Amino acid sequence: MKLAVIGSGNIGKSIGEWASKVNYEVIFSAKNEQHAQEVAKAAGNHAKSATVKSAVEMADIILLAVPYGAVKEVVSEVGPLLKGKVLIDATNALTADFSGLALGFTTSAAEEIAKLLPEAKVVKAFNTVFASVYASQNPKIKGQPISVFYAGDDYEAKAKVADMITKMGFDAVDAGPLKAARNLEPMALLNISLGYGLGHGTSIGFSFVR
Amino acid sequence: MKLAVIGSGNIGKSIGEWASKVNYEVIFSAKNEQHAQEVAKAAGNHAKSATVKSAVEMADIILLAVPYGAVKEVVSEVGPLLKGKVLIDATNALTADFSGLALGFTTSAAEEIAKLLPEAKVVKAFNTVFASVYASQNPKIKGQPISVFYAGDDYEAKAKVADMITKMGFDAVDAGPLKAARNLEPMALLNISLGYGLGHGTSIGFSFVR
Repeated sequence: MKLAVIGSGNIGKSIGEWASKVNYEVIFSAKNEQHAQEVAKAAGNHAKSATVKSAVEMADIILLAVPYGAVKEVVSEVGPLLKGKVLIDATNALTADFSGLALGFTTSAAEEIAKLLPEAKVVKAFNTVFASVYASQNPKIKGQPISVFYAGDDYEAKAKVADMITKMGFDAVDAGPLKAARNLEPMALLNISLGYGLGHGTSIGFSFVR
Repeated sequence: MKLAVIGSGNIGKSIGEWASKVNYEVIFSAKNEQHAQEVAKAAGNHAKSATVKSAVEMADIILLAVPYGAVKEVVSEVGPLLKGKVLIDATNALTADFSGLALGFTTSAAEEIAKLLPEAKVVKAFNTVFASVYASQNPKIKGQPISVFYAGDDYEAKAKVADMITKMGFDAVDAGPLKAARNLEPMALLNISLGYGLGHGTSIGFSFVR
């Protein structure tokens, strides 16, 4: 399975690196191509880098890991190439001070992205866990399994994302249709506030117990 | 510590019953006074029932466990009596089909209640866990501790609520100021959708791992 990562920041880097360890063919890409190259090199495991365009063309699954403000630029560059592909939206559309959701609750980043890309199979995922947890390549914290929630409207696309989450060792939790991103994005905000403002640090996560 | 419970539905009944077991003097109250009486009797442990007015007058902490739609009626009946008291808001303002939040994300049930009762010390809590978990009187599920999140602007009021959560054996998690109810109410919606639509049942919960 070929995974393109768009964005070479902490989220893209750490998830891509881990995915490459569990046998995904990972192609890193970013506006800063040199940085994508460095990230690919650091990841090892035959990870490659490419332009955003080539990365998307080669991949089955694309992880969108850019700041929400950069989404429109990505869409204008590779929008048509995403037709029929699985697009994982890991973004969080926060206000500038990180204290609120820029889009409110009557929509979500995932739904806005799906509106821009009606032919892509958008799945919200990986947005409720800190990059440092992905970087640790350990799906448990203090022995407790961390849940990675995903939401989307396409059954097969969701299954592929669930498979990726599970291969990384996380507890994959189906949170429902893409609209449920409206629940996952505030959960990310809670996670961020617990980690920073409330002093728990970034080695934290939610475990869905059942 | 005297706890008044307003509302004799599943949430009020099960939290009140448990609190009475951990030595809170619990006074059940409801619009249906006979029902409150029955609930108090079933709770044992010297739990009492009273009119909503008397219950509030006697108590240090008040648990508001009515449907969100009934909040205004409670406020008009006992609003002034809540001055200076700790009011735990356990409500969730859901849309009629339980699929969304009636108040959106630019405010929260807790903040709206605090606006109606500027002199009460409102703390959001107990809204992200199913009543059946409270009814079980077991703060763990499958051996994992369940987190009960609380949010509020008054430090002492929060400490009292945290103490109550802890005495019940739960993991008490400070989620920040009352505004953070905007994160906890969507979390409740996620919990409800996982329990019902997504088939996990009601013996579920979130564990905040750190």
